[in-house]
Amino acid sequence: MAVVTPLDPKRRKAGTDALEALVELVATDLAAVNDLIIRRMHSDVEMIPQLAGYIVASGGKRLRPVLTLAAARLCGYQGERHQPLAACVEFIHTATLLHDDVVDESDLRRGQPSANAVFGNKASVLVGDFLFSRAFQVMTEDGSLDVLRILSSASAVISEGEVLQLITANDTTTSEEAYLEVIRAKTAELFAAACRIGAVVAGRPAAEEEALRSYGLNLGIAFQVVDDVLDYSAVQARLGKSIGDDFREGKITLPVVLAFRRGDDEERAFWRRTLEDIDQRDGDLEHALALMQRHNTLRDSVERARHYGAMARDALGLFPASPIKRALLDVIDFVVDRDF
Amino acid sequence: MAVVTPLDPKRRKAGTDALEALVELVATDLAAVNDLIIRRMHSDVEMIPQLAGYIVASGGKRLRPVLTLAAARLCGYQGERHQPLAACVEFIHTATLLHDDVVDESDLRRGQPSANAVFGNKASVLVGDFLFSRAFQVMTEDGSLDVLRILSSASAVISEGEVLQLITANDTTTSEEAYLEVIRAKTAELFAAACRIGAVVAGRPAAEEEALRSYGLNLGIAFQVVDDVLDYSAVQARLGKSIGDDFREGKITLPVVLAFRRGDDEERAFWRRTLEDIDQRDGDLEHALALMQRHNTLRDSVERARHYGAMARDALGLFPASPIKRALLDVIDFVVDRDF
Repeated sequence: MAVVTPLDPKRRKAGTDALEALVELVATDLAAVNDLIIRRMHSDVEMIPQLAGYIVASGGKRLRPVLTLAAARLCGYQGERHQPLAACVEFIHTATLLHDDVVDESDLRRGQPSANAVFGNKASVLVGDFLFSRAFQVMTEDGSLDVLRILSSASAVISEGEVLQLITANDTTTSEEAYLEVIRAKTAELFAAACRIGAVVAGRPAAEEEALRSYGLNLGIAFQVVDDVLDYSAVQARLGKSIGDDFREGKITLPVVLAFRRGDDEERAFWRRTLEDIDQRDGDLEHALALMQRHNTLRDSVERARHYGAMARDALGLFPASPIKRALLDVIDFVVDRDF
Repeated sequence: MAVVTPLDPKRRKAGTDALEALVELVATDLAAVNDLIIRRMHSDVEMIPQLAGYIVASGGKRLRPVLTLAAARLCGYQGERHQPLAACVEFIHTATLLHDDVVDESDLRRGQPSANAVFGNKASVLVGDFLFSRAFQVMTEDGSLDVLRILSSASAVISEGEVLQLITANDTTTSEEAYLEVIRAKTAELFAAACRIGAVVAGRPAAEEEALRSYGLNLGIAFQVVDDVLDYSAVQARLGKSIGDDFREGKITLPVVLAFRRGDDEERAFWRRTLEDIDQRDGDLEHALALMQRHNTLRDSVERARHYGAMARDALGLFPASPIKRALLDVIDFVVDRDF
């Protein structure tokens, strides 16, 4: 596996600090959410908390539940309903991770053996179903039909995005629009829902709900674009992340979409052989990276992410200045400029 | 594959007629449910309605949604809310079938190639997720938190049952109690929920809700026990059903639980070799059937099912006589005495 220098190493520290600052502001809430997650994923069938706990504890950043907590606080919410709802968001996210890893036949997640590699595909499918059901149980206990509507609709869209990704996989002619459609559905909708329900529990007007939805949606698009860039450029040592997974699976992500369009006939033949036919040889990943370098597609993908980040920033414009708003704005930089 | 004479061929006709009579009584509602199913499984991602439609249309008896419709009518309900909720019940059932077939690595369902065999495991996992999410969207539109509570809780229990089944698979020492715990969770809870929500939409008192839950639960247990018997005794020609699938997978169902307990050391060694080690040779299925014949475990399993059927029958005792009650009682006979 090739190791590539991150695009701009000096940005790392600021970005990480931004996420830490946000987490710090909701630390008490997040501790309660972590307790709820442990408590509510319990089942007398021991393998369920074992497997669920394995993935829940495996180094995720809790970005989505943190967004729910922060959005609620941004809206001046003083209660505790956002805590179980943030746990629901994490349950839905975890369920999709479990099913994703089965669908992608992944052996690694966040540098550790994936749950399906340890517990098997069958258990991963079923425990994903359990977490998904449990999320709806917890939402029902909360009792807000608005929240149920937002999260059930987000879940349906996520599955649609995943199926769409399956269908467009290995198609090198995928357009940037088609790529965006997939990541909006599979990733950004849950970010949008996570933020939006913060305004819902706070009982804020539709404009604020919509503003937080827009912040989450654009942040989620930026997040996924950068994730796809990092699959070709992450510092391997950080969090054990390896590079080239998407390449080996023939996933058509933005750096590839741009490289295919900017390439000549010979280059397109290379992309077709490696990503459509999955006929890959020693040195192919390095050659792919060289082509991306030649056409600046990693740098330009990050620039595209920055555009969605800018939209996320403006979406928060109607909220007055506050430490939590500052932290939510800084998290955009974390998402765009992170190198892991 | 061996073909075995059904336990009592003359019973077939009465049983089938009983289901047909029940379906006849809710025919208008069921037509509306079928429309709703088609309408609500729509997605712009074409593979979703294609795959979902493939399994939804593949000859299922629509037993669970019919139970919701009939239970509501038994409670004197005159509205239409039970129609979308019956569709939800079928969506949840279909989602579990899709995931089941992936988990069981099945190639056939109801005598046709299973959805995963046609569309692939990945699509089956994701479309199952879609149907599940869509079910919760439709329930949320209905707006009853009681229904949401009942069906989200049933869904969580179903996943728990499936995981439990996975863990106890291939364990020949499984007790009858452990077997019952699995089928109660994976099958009977959804029957119970399907019936119970009929009373909920009708706004009936807790005693009637509980009576319908009990009817559904016991009917569901009887249904699954007989399903497991039929895997060793179905008439192969009917609905293309083949026998011996559970044997080949090493599933420990009631006919095996009883045969293992009633067998001698040599017989237990046979069950361990074939079902624990999955070391199966020509003639093993026929030998298994002979052992079941020797110990009467198919006949006695049906007797066990009849016991749960009797409990289902008594559960309906507090409802006054009506054609729909008559049909619900007759369906118990269909479930116990069917040969397909």
